[in-house]
Amino acid sequence: MSGPNYTSRRSRLVKAFKSAGVDSLLVSGVSNVRYLTGFTGDSTWLFLSKTNTILISDSRYTTQLANECREIDVDIRDARKPMAVAVAAVVKKSNGKLVGFETDHLTVAQHQTLTAKIESAELVPTSGLTERLREVKDNWELQQIREAIHLAERGIAVVRSSLRPNQTERDVRYTLEAAMRSFGATGPGFEPIVGVGPTAALPHAHAGELQVSESPILLIDWGAETHSGYRSDLTRVFFTGKITKQMKTVYETVLRAHQMAIAAIKPGAECRMVDGIARKIIADAGFEKYFGHGLGHGFGLDIHESVRMSPLSEQVFEPGMVVTVEPGIYLPGKFGVRIEDDILVTNDGHEVLSSVPREFDDAAVEFLA
Amino acid sequence: MSGPNYTSRRSRLVKAFKSAGVDSLLVSGVSNVRYLTGFTGDSTWLFLSKTNTILISDSRYTTQLANECREIDVDIRDARKPMAVAVAAVVKKSNGKLVGFETDHLTVAQHQTLTAKIESAELVPTSGLTERLREVKDNWELQQIREAIHLAERGIAVVRSSLRPNQTERDVRYTLEAAMRSFGATGPGFEPIVGVGPTAALPHAHAGELQVSESPILLIDWGAETHSGYRSDLTRVFFTGKITKQMKTVYETVLRAHQMAIAAIKPGAECRMVDGIARKIIADAGFEKYFGHGLGHGFGLDIHESVRMSPLSEQVFEPGMVVTVEPGIYLPGKFGVRIEDDILVTNDGHEVLSSVPREFDDAAVEFLA
Repeated sequence: MSGPNYTSRRSRLVKAFKSAGVDSLLVSGVSNVRYLTGFTGDSTWLFLSKTNTILISDSRYTTQLANECREIDVDIRDARKPMAVAVAAVVKKSNGKLVGFETDHLTVAQHQTLTAKIESAELVPTSGLTERLREVKDNWELQQIREAIHLAERGIAVVRSSLRPNQTERDVRYTLEAAMRSFGATGPGFEPIVGVGPTAALPHAHAGELQVSESPILLIDWGAETHSGYRSDLTRVFFTGKITKQMKTVYETVLRAHQMAIAAIKPGAECRMVDGIARKIIADAGFEKYFGHGLGHGFGLDIHESVRMSPLSEQVFEPGMVVTVEPGIYLPGKFGVRIEDDILVTNDGHEVLSSVPREFDDAAVEFLA
Repeated sequence: MSGPNYTSRRSRLVKAFKSAGVDSLLVSGVSNVRYLTGFTGDSTWLFLSKTNTILISDSRYTTQLANECREIDVDIRDARKPMAVAVAAVVKKSNGKLVGFETDHLTVAQHQTLTAKIESAELVPTSGLTERLREVKDNWELQQIREAIHLAERGIAVVRSSLRPNQTERDVRYTLEAAMRSFGATGPGFEPIVGVGPTAALPHAHAGELQVSESPILLIDWGAETHSGYRSDLTRVFFTGKITKQMKTVYETVLRAHQMAIAAIKPGAECRMVDGIARKIIADAGFEKYFGHGLGHGFGLDIHESVRMSPLSEQVFEPGMVVTVEPGIYLPGKFGVRIEDDILVTNDGHEVLSSVPREFDDAAVEFLA
């Protein structure tokens, strides 16, 4: 399969200019720049109009830009020239009059400086123009995401098969990262969460010094990143000892919420509705106040992307979207359970892209004596 | 040594309110929140006034906040309530009328939403209030930074002693990261740059597939992160084969620029002046256009912090500041050399905190047959 078609992506973005009320766009979000140009560095903004495609960068990136973005004009500023001054010159030369900027990727300070330097055009706020394109993955992107999932799944197989009672959360995290790299990942898709017992009740805990033997619950939330920058995001809970009745109830409740939510994913379904399915199952089982986060999110170049599944979401599923589904129940001071898979919205429903076993009986890990 | 005194840090911040024209401050920068409270998660903002210290977060972090920030009030919003709504309620209850926000850490979109939700007070732009405090490290922070440097130095010793001609840049990067972790680092302080020959001419290259044997120049820019979140930042160039006269000239020029710049660091010295010393040495040797970045930067919880040494800087050194000094010369398509150390500004001059050998004769690496 050939690589991504950056020209086509930019053309689709330019088509959205009219309804956004702009004649050009300043793209400053680092993943947006990568998506539209293939450039893998930072501190580099894209100015895009019908007739201009210009990357504004500095001399640290001269050679890298020449290698990665051969077909795109580059404006290199030296260490003496602030970004805003370079941008103002590009805007002036382009004759753009209504220059969109990304409200989600420009700080208030950057906006103030740009406003002061740009005299030849008006800065117009825009939101989510490129993110909207990124919601729906093309075939090349799906291939990258499948690879990121494959790398994550090979990694967790190593962790599971090498698990020992005296490993700390941190040991497990480092084993997992090294394994994913040995299979070809650049690294983890995000800081892996490895939580034993009470730590598993912290949805975003850092892996610490608890040993696997200190609780029968081990939660791992992990993913891989490919060299192309795409990520995966999975969670599994392992039983590493004799579990309580409550642990079983919680696991089965989370799994039911997870399965019923996934079953509802198809083109046209509302993200909020799918979130509500999982939330109701957890509430009906008496755990409403122990599921405080949204049900899932898009991912790709970033680990959290549009779309979002939460009670506040107003988005609707379309074919080509890829999202996590990750309900959880967290009992403070005791333990937590979350089960997370990666789901592709297809033309007539969905495909579960990840395949690590998730049934109750699959969660038990037996140690060799 | 006891841990950081968060209460004292917040008191000093509150003292800066008057001249900033605010009666309270909304801190949204993630490292600023950590510096002021010890909280290691994200998505959590601090509201601070003379009488209120409130962390506004969500239920993913309930337990973690209770563990890490025992003495601070916490306002937990559920998945249905946007951050801006929670903030508006806290602001209203506090009776703050002039609420500062961080222009460098609030996006234009977040600012728009906050402005719409906060009716009981005026939002006042501020810049660098907490960053200004973070420029000068306290004794506990210096201990953490020394540890981060120590971890980085132990890591590079492993790389150097195990270097093989057939290792790729990526192999070297992973060896380095694993070594630093084995000594107790959480991980690298940033994505390590490992560049062979032409890749070394890219100041911010990703480690790739070039083998060490493909050029006599190997550049490594690396650091470690401690469990407390503090970082180090170093660069060395190794000669892994017979070098050219030009390589020697470039190395010696960079080293002279590095040494002369460091010699000028003391309280009261202007950052721009120190940058100028290195820049002039490189220009006088005929390489002016091949040194495009600033001379150095502060670091600590973030890898790039205030202060900055560049031709644009208006800052002045004070005792307790810690900065990198990292001149470089990059010859596109050929090779690059950068030498970087970590410097503490002392009461009467400076201390070079890092000690990896850097003389010309130290750079040669001999392979075992």
